[in-house]
Amino acid sequence: MDIAHGFLIIAVIILGARLFAELGVRIGIPTVIGEILAGLVLGPSVLGFVESNETLQFIAEVGIVLLLFEVGMETDLYRMAKTGFKPFIVANAGVFFPFVLGYAVSYYLLHIPFLASLFIGGTLTATSIGITVRVLTELNRRQSHEAQIVIGAAVIDDVLGVLVLAFLYQFAQSGSLSLLATAQVALYIVLFMILSPLLAKVVGFVIEHFDRHSATPGLLLSLALGLILLMSYLAHLLGAPEILGGFAAGLAMGQHFRFVIPQMMNGMPFHRHITHVMTPSPVMANRVASQMEPLIHTFAPIFFVMVGVSINLHAINWAAPEVWLMGGLWVLVAIVGKFLSGFAVSENRLTQMAIGLAMIPRGEVGLIFAQLGFAQHILSPLVYAALVLVIMLSTIFPPFMLKGFYARYGNRMRSPGEPA
Amino acid sequence: MDIAHGFLIIAVIILGARLFAELGVRIGIPTVIGEILAGLVLGPSVLGFVESNETLQFIAEVGIVLLLFEVGMETDLYRMAKTGFKPFIVANAGVFFPFVLGYAVSYYLLHIPFLASLFIGGTLTATSIGITVRVLTELNRRQSHEAQIVIGAAVIDDVLGVLVLAFLYQFAQSGSLSLLATAQVALYIVLFMILSPLLAKVVGFVIEHFDRHSATPGLLLSLALGLILLMSYLAHLLGAPEILGGFAAGLAMGQHFRFVIPQMMNGMPFHRHITHVMTPSPVMANRVASQMEPLIHTFAPIFFVMVGVSINLHAINWAAPEVWLMGGLWVLVAIVGKFLSGFAVSENRLTQMAIGLAMIPRGEVGLIFAQLGFAQHILSPLVYAALVLVIMLSTIFPPFMLKGFYARYGNRMRSPGEPA
Repeated sequence: MDIAHGFLIIAVIILGARLFAELGVRIGIPTVIGEILAGLVLGPSVLGFVESNETLQFIAEVGIVLLLFEVGMETDLYRMAKTGFKPFIVANAGVFFPFVLGYAVSYYLLHIPFLASLFIGGTLTATSIGITVRVLTELNRRQSHEAQIVIGAAVIDDVLGVLVLAFLYQFAQSGSLSLLATAQVALYIVLFMILSPLLAKVVGFVIEHFDRHSATPGLLLSLALGLILLMSYLAHLLGAPEILGGFAAGLAMGQHFRFVIPQMMNGMPFHRHITHVMTPSPVMANRVASQMEPLIHTFAPIFFVMVGVSINLHAINWAAPEVWLMGGLWVLVAIVGKFLSGFAVSENRLTQMAIGLAMIPRGEVGLIFAQLGFAQHILSPLVYAALVLVIMLSTIFPPFMLKGFYARYGNRMRSPGEPA
Repeated sequence: MDIAHGFLIIAVIILGARLFAELGVRIGIPTVIGEILAGLVLGPSVLGFVESNETLQFIAEVGIVLLLFEVGMETDLYRMAKTGFKPFIVANAGVFFPFVLGYAVSYYLLHIPFLASLFIGGTLTATSIGITVRVLTELNRRQSHEAQIVIGAAVIDDVLGVLVLAFLYQFAQSGSLSLLATAQVALYIVLFMILSPLLAKVVGFVIEHFDRHSATPGLLLSLALGLILLMSYLAHLLGAPEILGGFAAGLAMGQHFRFVIPQMMNGMPFHRHITHVMTPSPVMANRVASQMEPLIHTFAPIFFVMVGVSINLHAINWAAPEVWLMGGLWVLVAIVGKFLSGFAVSENRLTQMAIGLAMIPRGEVGLIFAQLGFAQHILSPLVYAALVLVIMLSTIFPPFMLKGFYARYGNRMRSPGEPA
């Protein structure tokens, strides 16, 4: 890619993503769907203007790692631990049903290879926090009882989704499903998830210290970005996907993390000293978040546009009944699987339905799943394209379903703030 | 480049640049020199850890375009026009002497090819605004009479430098020096420099309008970045280097630009309406600047690190006398050429010397010059390495010389704010 031509391509990707996102939001379509549509239009499916290459893939990958960093920063482990078991149960059910159903349908009914079927199951597991929160906020239900459960569950199932992805990724790399390898990956990932935020926290303290005494501007941002990229590399070394590193760095630098450490250390030796070290000012977390924001806004859309670019709709034989069968079954699994999760907790029927509906929107993690499976040559172009379309459909419609549901039954449910 | 490995490389580049810049500033070395040193250490000269590749080059190029955007945003054409002729004369003398002397020494004494000699002359022309301003501020001389002249001249000679570069770049592309081609390039560049800020201004108005009515966050940044990259592509199409596009976009989006347009339009038809359209709130310029800052802080150092990486000190035969002759002559030209510029205006001897000394530090534009000449295979690796070292030397020492000068003669000069 010639550099000047590369400038043109990136400009068109950024502006195209923005145009489609903006138009989409006005007709009720989530930003991420607009960005994928921009990619479909710019890529081989319609205009053929943008082709994937090494540089674009690298930039897109930076985008998704930064996005997971943002998700990590917004994840409040302590609060999640305090909301009780209901979100945890909903999240597990919401991962279990779509994963098992997705796998079973793909492997037994559609006769897709074993590993690919596992990836398809995984792709259907993760609820999109962003879309769910946005819809519930619009409906003025953000503080409702069911919203608390759903948001907690959406965060947990993103984490579960990323963990499932890490396992499958390792299987894909080693090419086999040995018990020893599984145990090893499990150990690595658990160690990574426990140690890396601690490590990153210590580094965060060092960053804060240097930032206070720095002679050059912009130190905070460079160090945060360096940390994110190093953690992503470390995750990759341990056999997990890079995004897990971004997520762990986000957990560590988020302002919620400071509450967890002192709690954990309570009564241990050096408790007071370590608590002091481990409690950076929330001001720093806010500064990191606000300085990273422009980078995230710039890079993340490039990932979603490149998802659209990586699909060639012309390569799919739309006349083949199996395409429609495949897509139809997966959409069904995507909707029914998540809807069932609402019924895993004891609530009245309407609340269970609201939870189930609110869990349906898919998003970033599912797309990352599908994209990784495709890049590793586990998913065929056909399966990949169908999966992305399924994610898009199961992201576009649930907000409308949820709005319809609340319009009809909302007044019969517990109103926000009302005691249980 | 494997993506995870790429993450590691970028992280090391960002952190290395930061480390060397931070250490450098503490011992009085400008940031940009620290970053080049980081590149020398990481590159083939010392560790051999970072190798140039397409993706890194692309990212580095984005960095330099963004940096020129920042320079453009900070350039106040209207104020420059008002400061009178002295900065203009100093700037022209400060471009003329080093260019002619650099060319003459290289072509006649060192017998370097014609085009390469022109590039060497060009490399030695541009004073670094950033370093000069920083040193004068440290000396509490920022508001002094000579500082006003020097800062104005540094801005003007950056513009002149970029224009000279655009011409040489075009010659390099076409491979010949025909009068017609020269006239054509001159026409293109003049048209580009006049029309593109106007075009960008109109686009800027559209951006501001959409930003006010946007449904998605981060619109301003995407549009600004898209505009910068498109302008850079446009500059390339017209045969100018991409950085000219970044600079033009910066001029247009800077908050100073609004003063120029209404002045220019005075008395023309639709003057009031156009003035209204052309006068965005300074708030927007500030928002663009503050949102672009994290991107610039991230990308620009990568360019300077890659300058260091592109040099292989092992490839230079340090025992050859011609290396030392070459370097010595160019350092002499770099210092004497600029020092002479102070004597082009009628001031007392001490003020002339202060101006001459303050004009010596070189910086970004010179490095861009050298790097472009090298990338176009006009400059040999040896000449390129020697030039970068010359720029580094003529950037490191002048601040010390200036400090020494003011320590000795400062009390004999007009103090800040004193009437002429």
